[in-house]
Parts: sequence; C-alpha cells; structure tokens
Amino acid sequence: MAGFRGYSGQELVAILSRHPHVELVLLEHRDAEDRPQPMGPPRFRKLPCTPETVRAEGLAVVFLPTPAEASMELAPTLLGAGAKVIDLSGAFRLGTPENYARWYKEAHTAPELLKEAAYGLPEFCRSRITGAKLIANPGCYPTAANLALKPLLDAGVIVRESGIVCDAKSGVSGAGRKPSLKTGFCEVTENFSTYAILEHRHVPEILRVSNLEEGELSFTAQLIPIDRGILETIYFRAKDVHSAQDLLDIYQKQYSDEPMIRLYAPGQAPDIRSVARTNFCDLGVQYDPRTMRAVIVAAIDNLGKGAAGQAVQNMNLALGFSETISLL
Amino acid sequence: MAGFRGYSGQELVAILSRHPHVELVLLEHRDAEDRPQPMGPPRFRKLPCTPETVRAEGLAVVFLPTPAEASMELAPTLLGAGAKVIDLSGAFRLGTPENYARWYKEAHTAPELLKEAAYGLPEFCRSRITGAKLIANPGCYPTAANLALKPLLDAGVIVRESGIVCDAKSGVSGAGRKPSLKTGFCEVTENFSTYAILEHRHVPEILRVSNLEEGELSFTAQLIPIDRGILETIYFRAKDVHSAQDLLDIYQKQYSDEPMIRLYAPGQAPDIRSVARTNFCDLGVQYDPRTMRAVIVAAIDNLGKGAAGQAVQNMNLALGFSETISLL
Amino acid sequence: MAGFRGYSGQELVAILSRHPHVELVLLEHRDAEDRPQPMGPPRFRKLPCTPETVRAEGLAVVFLPTPAEASMELAPTLLGAGAKVIDLSGAFRLGTPENYARWYKEAHTAPELLKEAAYGLPEFCRSRITGAKLIANPGCYPTAANLALKPLLDAGVIVRESGIVCDAKSGVSGAGRKPSLKTGFCEVTENFSTYAILEHRHVPEILRVSNLEEGELSFTAQLIPIDRGILETIYFRAKDVHSAQDLLDIYQKQYSDEPMIRLYAPGQAPDIRSVARTNFCDLGVQYDPRTMRAVIVAAIDNLGKGAAGQAVQNMNLALGFSETISLL
Amino acid sequence: MAGFRGYSGQELVAILSRHPHVELVLLEHRDAEDRPQPMGPPRFRKLPCTPETVRAEGLAVVFLPTPAEASMELAPTLLGAGAKVIDLSGAFRLGTPENYARWYKEAHTAPELLKEAAYGLPEFCRSRITGAKLIANPGCYPTAANLALKPLLDAGVIVRESGIVCDAKSGVSGAGRKPSLKTGFCEVTENFSTYAILEHRHVPEILRVSNLEEGELSFTAQLIPIDRGILETIYFRAKDVHSAQDLLDIYQKQYSDEPMIRLYAPGQAPDIRSVARTNFCDLGVQYDPRTMRAVIVAAIDNLGKGAAGQAVQNMNLALGFSETISLL
Repeated sequence: MAGFRGYSGQELVAILSRHPHVELVLLEHRDAEDRPQPMGPPRFRKLPCTPETVRAEGLAVVFLPTPAEASMELAPTLLGAGAKVIDLSGAFRLGTPENYARWYKEAHTAPELLKEAAYGLPEFCRSRITGAKLIANPGCYPTAANLALKPLLDAGVIVRESGIVCDAKSGVSGAGRKPSLKTGFCEVTENFSTYAILEHRHVPEILRVSNLEEGELSFTAQLIPIDRGILETIYFRAKDVHSAQDLLDIYQKQYSDEPMIRLYAPGQAPDIRSVARTNFCDLGVQYDPRTMRAVIVAAIDNLGKGAAGQAVQNMNLALGFSETISLL
Repeated sequence: MAGFRGYSGQELVAILSRHPHVELVLLEHRDAEDRPQPMGPPRFRKLPCTPETVRAEGLAVVFLPTPAEASMELAPTLLGAGAKVIDLSGAFRLGTPENYARWYKEAHTAPELLKEAAYGLPEFCRSRITGAKLIANPGCYPTAANLALKPLLDAGVIVRESGIVCDAKSGVSGAGRKPSLKTGFCEVTENFSTYAILEHRHVPEILRVSNLEEGELSFTAQLIPIDRGILETIYFRAKDVHSAQDLLDIYQKQYSDEPMIRLYAPGQAPDIRSVARTNFCDLGVQYDPRTMRAVIVAAIDNLGKGAAGQAVQNMNLALGFSETISLL
Repeated sequence: MAGFRGYSGQELVAILSRHPHVELVLLEHRDAEDRPQPMGPPRFRKLPCTPETVRAEGLAVVFLPTPAEASMELAPTLLGAGAKVIDLSGAFRLGTPENYARWYKEAHTAPELLKEAAYGLPEFCRSRITGAKLIANPGCYPTAANLALKPLLDAGVIVRESGIVCDAKSGVSGAGRKPSLKTGFCEVTENFSTYAILEHRHVPEILRVSNLEEGELSFTAQLIPIDRGILETIYFRAKDVHSAQDLLDIYQKQYSDEPMIRLYAPGQAPDIRSVARTNFCDLGVQYDPRTMRAVIVAAIDNLGKGAAGQAVQNMNLALGFSETISLL
Repeated sequence: MAGFRGYSGQELVAILSRHPHVELVLLEHRDAEDRPQPMGPPRFRKLPCTPETVRAEGLAVVFLPTPAEASMELAPTLLGAGAKVIDLSGAFRLGTPENYARWYKEAHTAPELLKEAAYGLPEFCRSRITGAKLIANPGCYPTAANLALKPLLDAGVIVRESGIVCDAKSGVSGAGRKPSLKTGFCEVTENFSTYAILEHRHVPEILRVSNLEEGELSFTAQLIPIDRGILETIYFRAKDVHSAQDLLDIYQKQYSDEPMIRLYAPGQAPDIRSVARTNFCDLGVQYDPRTMRAVIVAAIDNLGKGAAGQAVQNMNLALGFSETISLL
C-alpha cells in the first residue's frame, strides 16, 4: 500500500498487520514525516510504488489512501500491472468526469476508469465489489448517511418534500495529516466549527446512492475537537409509521445479516465512543408521534468503517476471504 | 449572590469583579468543593443566603445561579426582603405552573411568582426587564435559538410547515459542576454524544419566545468535549428571499442597535472560539437559492450570553446602568 | 472477572475477548452504570462473584480489577474455591501488613495472603509468577519506574546520593471510573495538575523492587488531560558511563529477550502515543557527558502494561500459555 | 505592534484593548491567516511596520511578538525612529553574540544592541526596565523557573551540588501559530511528549538570572495537550530549613510587595487553571524533612506572565504607568 504515513494509511497498516492471510508491503510514493520509532528491524519492507514492484512482488491488491490527484495518477499503471486497486480518495466515486469536475473543481485525469470502478459500500454493492478490479472506497460522511437513509427512503417512510437534514460532525483526522492552520491544536481545542455548509464534496455520494434530489438534502460538515469518529444527526418528517420501533423494523429487515451494522433500542443512541476503533456503523432512532418528526443518530469511525476498515472489508470481498477477517 | 462555586456562579464572580458600580457579597447556601487557592485575604465576604442578610446589607440584587429547586425556595424570601432577584435556573421561565410541571417533571413550589417574572432576553424584552423585581434569565440553548429564529419568523421568510431543525451542541460546563459519570473526563474526551433528542426542557422557551408550534421544531442537544460554548446549526426552507444577504438584511434591521449581536458576511460563520468568554451572540447565514434551503449558525458562550453574562446585562438594565458595563 | 465496568476491567474484557484460549465470564460484585449498548445477545455471561461460581464453572483464574478493600474481601474466598487470583489493586503488593498500613492508611484485612502473593512484574519476577496462586499485579507508576531504574541501579551507574527524580504524569483513567469533582471534564480539560508530591502510595513499590532508600527518590504524580497513558521523566547523575549508548547497552543486555520492552536510539524518546493501547514499555535515554546528568523517558499505557495488559501477561505465565498471546 | 496574528500577538491585542492609556496600532510585517471575523468597522488601524510609521504616528513603544530573526531585523530601525521596543523573542536576552550563537545556532545580526537591552523580569530588574529603550521580554520557561529558584538560591538553602531538576510542561501555543506536523491536533491530543531534553534554548536565561552553573541544572521541556499554560515541577535537596514554611518564608520576604506573585499554603500547589489568562506566577512548596527533598510547583500562563502579560507589565514600567494596569 502507498500513503502509509497518513492517518488512513496508518490505520490500514494496523488492521492489515493482524490479518492472517495478508503479507504487507509499504509502497513509497511521496515523503512525509515519521513518528519516533523504537529501535529494531523494520516491520515491513518498503518498495517504490511502481508497476515493476507490483509485478516483481506479485501484489494482489494495492491500497491507495492518497489524495485524489495521486490516485488518478497511480491507479491506471497499478491496474495495468495486474493488481487490484482499492482507492480511498474521491477520485473514482462519482461515476462521470462531469460530476467529478463539478464537486472537486478540477478535471478528472483518468476518466476511462470511472465506469469500471465499483462503489465499495458492501451493504448495498456487495456483488459488484466481489468481481471488481478497481474499488472506490466510499467517503466517510456518505458511508454513515447512506447506511442510515437508504433503507428508509427505499421503504418510502420519509416525507422527501419536507427535506432531510444531515448535520454531520467529524474528528480532525478526517482532514488528513498534512499540517495546516485550521487543524492546528490551538485552533481546534476548545472549539467547534462548521466548515462546509450546503456544499461538501461528499454530498453527491449521498444523492447517488440513496437516490435523492439535491433539493431534498441539507448537509453540513463540522469539526469536533477529537482525533477520530463521525456522528451524524439526521432529521426528517416520517409517514406511514407510528413509532421508533416501526423505523427500527425497517433497519432490522435490511440489516439482519449484516455483520457491521448495529442497532439501538428505541430512544437510545450510539455515541462516537461506541464505534471508535471499530468497523461498525451504529444506528439509533428517535421518533415523536405527535409531530411525526424523526431523528436518526448514525456513528462510525471515520478511519474505520469510514476509510481503512471498510477498505479491508472490500479487500476481503474482492479476494474471496471471509468478509470480517481482522475487523471484529 | 448564591451558588458561587458552580460554573455559572464562578463566571458571575469573574464578570462582577470588574464591574465599577458593584460591591459583591457571596451568599452561602449549600456546600461544594473549592479549588486550590493562593494565600491571602479573601476577595469577597461570605454571608448566609437569608432575608436578614439582604436587609442588613441592603442588597439591591441577588443572583441565583442555583438549581430550579433551590431558586423556587430562595426567590420568595429574598424578594420579600426587598432585593431584586435574577434567577439563572429554569424555575421562572415558562409562565405557568402547568408548563413547568410538564417539562421539568415536578410541581412548581412558588407559582405565584411566575406571572411577575420578566423573561431576561434584552433584545426582545428590554422594557419589561427594566422594571422587573424578578428576572428569569433565559436558558442557554433558547438564547441562541431565539436570537437566530425570531427575526426571521417575524419577517415571514421561513416555511414553517417544512419544519425547522435546531441541531444544538454545548460544552460540558452546561451540565453543571456536580460530579457525574456522564461528565467525567474519560467519558467525554474523544467522544461526542446526543443527550436530549426531541425532548429537551429548553424547547418550550423557544416555542414561547419565537411563537412556534411544537410540530414545527426538531431540537437536539449534544455534548462537545470542550469546557464552554454553544453552537447551533439551524436549518429551514426559506421563502421570499433570493440570497443570504436578504436574510442578513432582516438581522441587520432588527439588530442594528444591539451591542451584543454580531453578524458575519454571507457564507461565513462564527465558531465557538469567536464567542468564548464574551457576551456576544454571533450569527452567520448560508443560503442555496437553487434548493431554497438555508442554514443559520448561531454561537454563544453558554456561561456568557447563555448565563452569567446575560444575567449581568439584565442587572445593568434593572439597576439603570449602561447595559454593557463589564461585558465588552 | 469482577469489576468489569471500571476502566481496567473494560480493558481486560477487550484483551481477553481476543485471547484464543480463554472463555470469559463476568462476575457481578457491585453495581455501576453501563454505557449505551447496541441491541443483541450479550457477549458474555454474568454470574455472581462467589466461591460457588468458581467451583461450578471451574474458573481457572479470577481477575480483580477492584479497589483494595474489595480485593482483600474477595481474594481469600476465591482462592479457597480453587481459582488463581490476579489482583490489580494495591492490596497484595507491599509484603507486610505494616507497610500496607503505612501507605494505604488502613489495616490489611487479609494479611495471611501477603507472603504468598507473587509480585507480577514478569521482567524481574517471572519464575515466581509461573507457580503463584495469587498474583499482585503491579501499580502503573512503579511498572514504568522499575523497568527504567532497576537495570541501571543494579549496574551501579546511578549516583544514588545525589538523588533520583521521577516526575510522573498519568492520564485520567488512572483515577478510576467513579465520578468525582477532580476528574470532571471541566476541571481537567485545559489543565495540568500535581496531585501527590513526595507521598504517593506507589512509592514503596519502587523502593522495594529497585532496592532504593526513601531519601534517594523524589516522586511526583501529575494529571494530564488525556484518557490513558503514563510518561515518566527520570533524572539522575550518572557515573562510569560516557554516553547515552553506554546506558542503552545496559538496557539492551537486560532486555534483549524481553518482548514487551522497546528501546529508542540515543537522544530519541517515546511519547505516550507510542505505547497507547499496547502492552509495551518504551524507554529513551538522554545523557550530557559534560554535566554527567542523565534523563530516562519511560512510557506505558496505564491500562495496558500498567494494569490489564500486564495482568493478562501474568495470566499467560501462570497458566502456561505463550507469554504474549493477545498482547502483540 | 507587529506580529499581531500570532498567539502572543493576539494576547497582546486583548490586553492592550482594555488599557486606558494606550491607543493601539497594528503593524503589518508579514502575512498570516486571519480567523473568521464578524462584520463591522475594524477595531484597529493597520499600518506598515516601518520607521516612517513610527515617526508619523509618534509611536512610543513597539511590541515585537515576532521570531528572533524578524526582531533582529526590525529592532534597530524602530529604535532609530525613536520608539522604545519590547521584544518578545529570544533575540536580545543572552547578553553576548557568542552566547546567542551557541544556543540559537545562528549568528546574531544586531549584536550592538545586546548590551543596551534590559532583561524584562520586573521582579528582579525593575530599575533597569524603567529607563530602557530596548526590553528583552523573558522566555516563558525562564520566567517561572527564575521566579521559583532565584530567591532560594540567593538564600543559600539549595544544595547545588546535588543538582536541581526543572521538569517543565507547556501548552501548545508556546510553539507558535505556524502550522507544523508536531502541533497538529491529531498528533497532540491524547498525547504527552518531551521535546527538548537537557538542551532547550531557554536554559541560558535560567543560568544567567539565577546564577547557576550548567552542571547544576537538568531542564526538560514537554508538551501538554492544552492551548496555554506552563507548569514547572522543580526538585532539589534543601539545607538549613526544617519545613515547607521555612521555604515559604523566603518567598514571602522576597515577594511581599510583588503584585504578580501568589503563594500557596505548605503542601498545596497551583495548577495551570489557577493562572490561565492571568499575569500571575503562582508558587507552591512541598518539603519532606526526613529526606530533605523539596519540590516547588510554579505555574504561569505562557501567553500571560510568560509573554504578552509581562510585556505589558514592562511597558507600564517603561512609560511610567502603574505597573499592573490592565493586568489585574
């Protein structure tokens, strides 16, 4: 895997280190600073991130926890050398170069791969993932939002025209490891800030997967002074339901066989600690029958189910391993 | 003032210490633990919280940053002794004993004072505050929510039937200084949690002041791992406006002479650090004309404009001082 | 195991859950509050913490991550029922009832067990642990201090008469999960405080294991606003060495076969993040040959090598498993 | 003042804003990013940081909360234009260009000013500060260390040959506002790290003011995951004293008329919260007569008494104002 010094990359290393069927190789792409390390032999070999390495080592899968620009540059050659690629950036999630250009404000440099890419949300795209060569690992915010919204939208219990509000909050590791003023400790501690109101580049993933119109969703991304974790508070007006249990029934039907989705009793809700350092997506439901207003609380670890954990889940599917290996 | 060891009480002491027209006396009501203190003579005298003290000292105002039960017990006797009372609890905010009983789950023990109490939100109740003997200092969440919503609702630019969402987040000092598992450091750090979904006792203050129906508002209270500060992200569908500036115009008209309200340019928003340790309420506006969805970001310090700061603002009004003394 | 709702208890559950040779049973001793839980069948059976349960279930080992008072009460009956006991409190660490009474300010209620207890620091007491029925798991601070100091003291390179300073800092979980004002979030965040200067009850464990006189050691315990982790900065004047490498050589000789000790290159040092959620003790060395002053930085996770991790290491030894199972 | 966007600069603006005898002008030197600001007229004029501005505006004092390189460049021309200069960097603290070169690893570019500069620690250098044109505001660590050590060393109660240990911890704002990996939120939160063991550039200020030999002091600088505040735990062997009170007596004699020094009762100690957002230096003393080991706990706000607060105290002295204006 490349990009192993970033936060998603470090988490991938941690998860893959305990995977019984994986031999991990680190692929150097660009420099970044290491943390202090104890003495001793290195745990993993480091090789250049090139097609030659893929061929010489016979790499089955390359993970790309890299920025979209790097992913668009690396993916074609790595695929050409015979590796499957699991990309953690937004490069291959949006289906068309036009959609990418609109939300990422730059031209796509590998548009021929967009059709080929499978969207890596196993709960809804498992069969495509299994046979894919290129997997676009979902964004962290859309993972939680789609797992919360899609079953209810499919069941027709949300009054779409009243609008859905997704108030999303994330830990700082979601912004990556590159130094910036906005992610400096003194700017973040004892603070809470909005940073993308009604215009986050993760919005089109929610619209696409949950089949929503743009005017039906208000999405805001906000920064919590914590390292890792996402909590989304999702509001809508419900119809054809009488209780929180009715909404939970829909989830239970949809997710009864899903190992990574956990539900809470009516009126209870997960917090970020419930899911930190796990690959779970936890869902809680509150409903007020007098006003027909419902609230869903969805929590994931942005580096777990929101990035590295889900990437390994996708690898397990793509390579034919049991889906939850090293994730439970 | 009584309750001087709690967080609102400590903040009151800090603000009143720099007030040029105030001589502060601390009134002992119940015990709590002090922090380590440097040696030296005590800064303030401590006396029992009784009518006798009020009379003997000729206290003009007594602040009650105490729980509602203590406030209902103390307010009648202190008023009887001739002091004005500024109560920071929920005891006298809701107008009727029935409303109090519904939201606070207990009977009101001083119902005769409810009609007399002025609601202490200067921006909308200044004239009543000026002459009041008993001032019910507003809740922290409703202060921000009403300052954000009332001008827009009065101007008729919110589509009420689509519903208003107020996703509110608060620092931990809002829960008070009494030890509890939920506010323990290890439970809160690196966490973010919801704690009152669709049923917070501050909701009726928003309904009452902004003149909303219960079904028109979805309110959620959440805990940020910080000491102090509130940020509310407020969502609605707008009508009869074409831009964020149109919404800002309404605020500018309403608040042009208000010293404690600050506005941000369209698309910009305050964060909690903008208002921490101040008495300001900061408001930012985002609007998407394609979808007619608007988002207001309102930020206050829960111990400032949300409690102690606003209480001093009310005292300044009630005693005829300049409204902003020791608050700017 | 009993005490499974405290922080050490929760960590034990986490570690033992991935242990291939352990079937875990939770033993109810006293009540405490649970965190919100997803729905579904409980992961572990809960039984009363009694000798009958030990016999009926054939429990091989009982962990006691409980206060010293509870451990002194429970250990005799559980041992009598045939279980080995690994106690995480200070109850059985000090060798004599007199020493316990001096430092814990209360009489020991099971003094007959003090001689029998093995001190559970594998790096220096491995053979006694292997055959022990009662294991006194070391305190968190002494674990780091003894691993740092004992090899250097044994090698005679510390000028004892100049005094050794151990400036110790711990995360808040070291204070336990019981609510208290001092561990409340608002008291701890953005703060740093000393809490036991020259008189911590962990001091006698350092004196005893490293064979120090009381006057040779100055120990201070301090609170970092973090959840978990300990860092000790240890100062002394060295003799008979010429460089940091000379001190490292002593560690390398002592610890070359120890799986849980990691060393850093001269002049480098671990931080708390290096060891968080691990069972490692990391050691870094700095030495100034002009002044002959040396500094050792020792880092552990107070819930890992400082409590639950080391307890499992001791269990692995006592039951004849490979020592590092579920710890690497 | 220049450098007004850094953390010391922001604190200077906050303190000077409430100073009754100061009209503040901001001097642009180099660019940095602003925080979000409410709309409205700017509070302060911004002008270029040049001698012309000094002359045209008749600036009495220019503060330089800038890096040492910028201070060495700006100070000569600003002094030449007739302003007094209060420099917050290390540029003018060390007395000789040789000492500067040794500790700052670069040549001094304005060595002619070194003799002229007064060291701005009012408690020990008040008379020189009063008449000085150039004031070298002390480093944050030495301020606390010298206020703690110098009276005791002067009184001869410290056994110098046993060595003094100063274990210093600072909040992250001490590292400045420039983005870096080491001060990123995710690197700092839930961590604690050493960063300058036995070789910090603040050491020579302690040696010089307290008149210590290098071999008598072991100093370590460490990073606490907080915004602001310094706590130093200082260890030594005492002589000719019998109790903590004996040590306190020395402080009381030295500091009885000092408005910015506060003492704690024997065995009590300040924490960082005691001094946050103040200009105080708080001192607590612990002493064990059996072992003759003493511990001093010294706390300041690194942006207060450790930087901006002390700079304003120096300005008050240099301009003949009452020393504590806007600082109490």
